[in-house]
Amino acid sequence: MLMIDFQTDPDQYRHWRVEYQDAVAWLTMDVDEDGGLFDGYKLKLNSYDLGVDIELADIVQRMRFEHPEVAVVVMQSGKDRVFCAGANIRMLGGASHSHKVNFCKFTNETRNTYEAAEADSQQKYIAAIKGSCAGGGYELALACNYLILTNDSSSAVALPEVPLLAVLPGTGGLTRVTDKRNVRRDRADIFCSLEEGVRGDRAKQWKLVDEVVPNAKFDQVVAARAAGFAGEIDKPAGLSGIALQPLQREFQSDGSINYSSLEVAVNREEGTATVTLHGPAEDCPESLDALIALGDQMYFLRLARELDDAILHLRANEADVGLLIFKTSGDLTRLLAHEAQLFANDGHWLVNEVLMYWKRLLKRIDVTSRSMVAIVEHGSCFGGLLAELLFAVDRSYMMDGEFDDDDRTEATITLTPANFGITPMGNGLTRLQTRFIGDDQAVEAAGQAVHEKLNAESADALGLITFALDDIDWEDEIRMFVEERASFSPDAMTGMEANLRFAGPETMETRIFGRLTAWQNWIFNRPNAVGENGALLRYGTGKRGEFSKERV
Amino acid sequence: MLMIDFQTDPDQYRHWRVEYQDAVAWLTMDVDEDGGLFDGYKLKLNSYDLGVDIELADIVQRMRFEHPEVAVVVMQSGKDRVFCAGANIRMLGGASHSHKVNFCKFTNETRNTYEAAEADSQQKYIAAIKGSCAGGGYELALACNYLILTNDSSSAVALPEVPLLAVLPGTGGLTRVTDKRNVRRDRADIFCSLEEGVRGDRAKQWKLVDEVVPNAKFDQVVAARAAGFAGEIDKPAGLSGIALQPLQREFQSDGSINYSSLEVAVNREEGTATVTLHGPAEDCPESLDALIALGDQMYFLRLARELDDAILHLRANEADVGLLIFKTSGDLTRLLAHEAQLFANDGHWLVNEVLMYWKRLLKRIDVTSRSMVAIVEHGSCFGGLLAELLFAVDRSYMMDGEFDDDDRTEATITLTPANFGITPMGNGLTRLQTRFIGDDQAVEAAGQAVHEKLNAESADALGLITFALDDIDWEDEIRMFVEERASFSPDAMTGMEANLRFAGPETMETRIFGRLTAWQNWIFNRPNAVGENGALLRYGTGKRGEFSKERV
Repeated sequence: MLMIDFQTDPDQYRHWRVEYQDAVAWLTMDVDEDGGLFDGYKLKLNSYDLGVDIELADIVQRMRFEHPEVAVVVMQSGKDRVFCAGANIRMLGGASHSHKVNFCKFTNETRNTYEAAEADSQQKYIAAIKGSCAGGGYELALACNYLILTNDSSSAVALPEVPLLAVLPGTGGLTRVTDKRNVRRDRADIFCSLEEGVRGDRAKQWKLVDEVVPNAKFDQVVAARAAGFAGEIDKPAGLSGIALQPLQREFQSDGSINYSSLEVAVNREEGTATVTLHGPAEDCPESLDALIALGDQMYFLRLARELDDAILHLRANEADVGLLIFKTSGDLTRLLAHEAQLFANDGHWLVNEVLMYWKRLLKRIDVTSRSMVAIVEHGSCFGGLLAELLFAVDRSYMMDGEFDDDDRTEATITLTPANFGITPMGNGLTRLQTRFIGDDQAVEAAGQAVHEKLNAESADALGLITFALDDIDWEDEIRMFVEERASFSPDAMTGMEANLRFAGPETMETRIFGRLTAWQNWIFNRPNAVGENGALLRYGTGKRGEFSKERV
Repeated sequence: MLMIDFQTDPDQYRHWRVEYQDAVAWLTMDVDEDGGLFDGYKLKLNSYDLGVDIELADIVQRMRFEHPEVAVVVMQSGKDRVFCAGANIRMLGGASHSHKVNFCKFTNETRNTYEAAEADSQQKYIAAIKGSCAGGGYELALACNYLILTNDSSSAVALPEVPLLAVLPGTGGLTRVTDKRNVRRDRADIFCSLEEGVRGDRAKQWKLVDEVVPNAKFDQVVAARAAGFAGEIDKPAGLSGIALQPLQREFQSDGSINYSSLEVAVNREEGTATVTLHGPAEDCPESLDALIALGDQMYFLRLARELDDAILHLRANEADVGLLIFKTSGDLTRLLAHEAQLFANDGHWLVNEVLMYWKRLLKRIDVTSRSMVAIVEHGSCFGGLLAELLFAVDRSYMMDGEFDDDDRTEATITLTPANFGITPMGNGLTRLQTRFIGDDQAVEAAGQAVHEKLNAESADALGLITFALDDIDWEDEIRMFVEERASFSPDAMTGMEANLRFAGPETMETRIFGRLTAWQNWIFNRPNAVGENGALLRYGTGKRGEFSKERV
C-alpha cells in the first residue's frame, strides 16, 4: 500500500494557495480534481481527501512559524459557485474502516488547530463563504471563528450528511453547531435534516453564520472585516518568521525511521513501535538571540516536528502496531537547561509558538488510538515537557536501582513548570490533574517536587509512574505486558483507552473525539451506511440507500 | 417475539429478595439460574439478564415509594463465593445488536437511579461484597455509594470484559472507575486488563472499594456501617409508604395501549407511536392530606408511572417505531393547579418522590433513541412538567389561530417553576438552559413569562416551540416531517440525536450514555467481539477470540 506522507511544503501544494498581504493571509481552496491521494475518485467541487487536508495542516503550521506577521487568515474558495462540498464521498465509500477513522481524526485535529490559532497565536481564521458550503465544507468553515456568507440564491451552508449519506457530520459539525455556534437544538435538528441547507438571513438568525452580506458587497465586506480584525489584534510590528525546512529522516525497510532527534524502531511481529527521543546534543544556546538564530533547528522545535511526523506516520501506515513504547535517552540536566531557556523567554513569539506546538503535539498523542507505554531506563531524560509523555501514556515502567552491566546514569524524572499548565489536555486540565483527578493533594505534592531529580522510589511515592522495577523483574514484566497487550482485541483497547484517558471535565474538543467520533465510528460499521445498499456506497448512483428501519 | 414487560411486583420476583429492618433494607441478589427472560442460557453465578434488572429497577422504585423509612440499602449476594458475575455472556452473545443496546441502556438507567437515591431520596446504597464481583457485577457495586469488600483469597473486584470478552465494561464501569472512584488512570488501565481483578488491601489503596474487612468481621462491619450511615441520614420518624398497585393498561392487537391517563397509538407502517397524555380528570385535591390519601392514584404519580412504562415498552418492543409523537389534551388550568399543589408541598417526602420521579422519567425520555416531536394542538395542556416534554423532544409544532371545525380551547403553553430547576437533564442544566445554550437572556425572558398562557405567537417569540403553523399548513407540514423522518437511516438519527440533545457541560451521566455507550456500541458491531470467531461468541467454548490486529 501507498505510504501516506504527512510532510509537504508550498512547492508541492496542488489544492491550496496563500497570498500574504501584510497582516492578512488569503487562503484559497482550489482543489485539483485529479490530485487525489488514491485512485478511483475525482476531487470535484472542492471536495477533499486526506491529501488535501495534509496541505491545509501544513499551511496552518507554516502560518504560525513562517508568517508570524499574519493576524487574520481568510479562508475562501477558488471555485465558482462552491465553497467546499466536504469530504469526497467516493473516497469515503471506497475506504477501509480504519482509513475512514484515521482520516476523520486528522481532519478533526487540523480543524482544532486553526480554531485555536486565535487564542494561541493571535491568528484569527475567518471563512468567506460564496457558493455551496456543505458537509465537511461547512465543518471547515465552522472551525473558523467568524463566518461571512454571501446572500445569493445558490450560496448556503448545509450539513446534508444525515439525509444524503446516512452518516453524521463527524468532523466536529454536530458539536460545533450546538456548543460553539449555540444553535437552538430544534433548529439544529432541522438544519441537519435539510439537504439544501440554510441560506440568507435565516442562516444568520439561526446563528449558523455571523454575517450575511449582499453578493455585490461581499468582497468589500470581507476585506473590511479582515482589516478590522487585524487591527484589533495587538501584534508587535516587524515580526519575521523562520523557515520550516524539510525534516531529516530516513526510512528503513522494516518500517523503522531515523530522525535527527529520535528513532522509531518498528517490530511488526510484536506489534510495537519503540520511539526513542534523544536529549539535546548541544548545550543550551547562550542567549535568546542565539536560540532564535537556530530557527527550525532549535532543539524543542526540531524534536516536536519529528515526533509529530512519527506519530502521524505510525497511525496512518502501521495499522498493526498496537503499542507505542516511548523511551528517552540523554543528559537530563542539559535538557532542562534548554527547556528553562524557553520558559524564561516565553514572551517571544517564536518561543510561544514552540510551546503551543508542544501543546498540540501532546494532545495528538492523547487521542492516538494505540496503547502507549513509557519505559524509563537508566540514562533517560524524562524531564519537563518530555515528562508529559509519562502522563500521556497508559502506563509506565521505571528502572529502580542498579542493573547488571548498565553503567548509565540512574533513571530519574524531573518535573518542571511545564507539567503544571502550559500544555493542558483537551479536557482543559493538566495531565497531572487528570492523573490525580479528585486528589488535589497529589497534584500539590508533585508541585513541591519541581526541579528535583526523582529516582524510581521517589517517583513511585509521588504517584508519577506505574511500576518501579528492579533488575530481577524488569525484562519479564515488560515482556509480559507487551505480550498481554498484543493478545487483546485492538477494538476493545481503542474503546477502553478513549474512556480511561479523559477523566474530569469535557470540552468541545473532548466531545468531538469522544462522543461524536464514537457515534460516527459506530455508524461507519452499520449496513445502513456502509452496506452494499447503504447510503454511502449508493451515493452518486441515483439510487438512495435502503435502510433497515430498526432503531437500536 | 416475546413481549418484554417492565412491570413486576415483589410476588413475582425470582432473583432478588429484600428484608426490611427499620431504616436498613437488606437487598439480596440470588438469581434463579432457570429464570432467564429468554431460552438458551442459564443465569449461573448471579449473572443477570434484562429480567433480573427489571426486578432490581422495581425494587429501587418501590423502596422510595413504599419504604420511605429506609435510609440505607445493603446490596449483597445470596450465593456462596460470588457476589455477581455480571451480565450473562451467553445471553449477550446470542442477543441482537438492538437488544444488547437496549439492555445496556436500561441497566445504566437503573444504576443511575439507585446511585442518585442518596441525594434525591435519602436512601444510600452500599455494596457488601463477598466473593467474586466481576464485570457487570462490579458495575452493580460501583453505582452504590459505599463499597465494602471482604478480605479472603477468593473475593475480588474485577472488570474482565476487555481481556475475556473484547468488549468494554459498558454499564458505567470505565466512567465510574475514573470519574467517581478517581482511580489513577494507569491503575485503571491495569485493573481493566486483569481477568482476576484486584483484591484485599490493593483494592482499597487503588480506591476500587472504600473499605476492606477481614472475612471474620465482615458481617459485623457491614451491619455497623449500615447502622452508622442510617444514623447520619436525618429522616423524619414514622414515615410510612404508599403501595404501588399494578398499572391499569390494556394492549390492543395493533400494539396500541390504553392507560388510565394516557394512550399510545402505534402505527407500525408509518413508524410512529403517538403518546397522548391526558390532563387530570378531577380537580386538585383540597388539601395535602387529601392528596396523600390518593396514594399511587395521585395524578402526577399515576401519569409518571404510565408514561415510564409506555416509553420502556416502546423502546423494547417496537423497534420499528422510529418517531414518538407527544400530545396532550385536557384542562391546562386544572393541570397547573395539581402541579402547584405539589410545589407548595415539596417538603413532604411523597411529593418530593413524585417530583424526583419526574426528573428520572424526563431523563429517560432524553436518552430515548427515537426521534421525538411534540404536537401542540388546540385543547392541549402543555404546562409546567408537561411542558418539559416540549424541550425534551427534537422539535415541536404548535397550532396557531383558528382551525376549521375545531372548537377546542386555543393551544397555549404555560411555563411554571417546574421548568426552571427541579428536573435537570443529565448534563446538569435545565432543558431550557440547554435549549438556549449560550443565551442566558432567552432563559431569563422565558422566566419572565412564567404562569402566562402563551399562544403560538408568544411561544414562538420566546423560542419555546419550533413551528407555529396555521390551519392551512398544519397537516401538510406534519405529514412531511413524519415522512421525512421515516426516510432517514435510523442509525444516523440515533447518532445525530445523541449529539444534538446534550449541548453544554457533561457529567458522569452524560458520559456514560454518550462516550462510553457509543464506543461500546461500536465494539458491538466489530468482528473481534461479535464475529463468529470473536471473543463474545467464543466465550465458554474454551477457545479464545481471534482478533484482527488492525487498529483503527
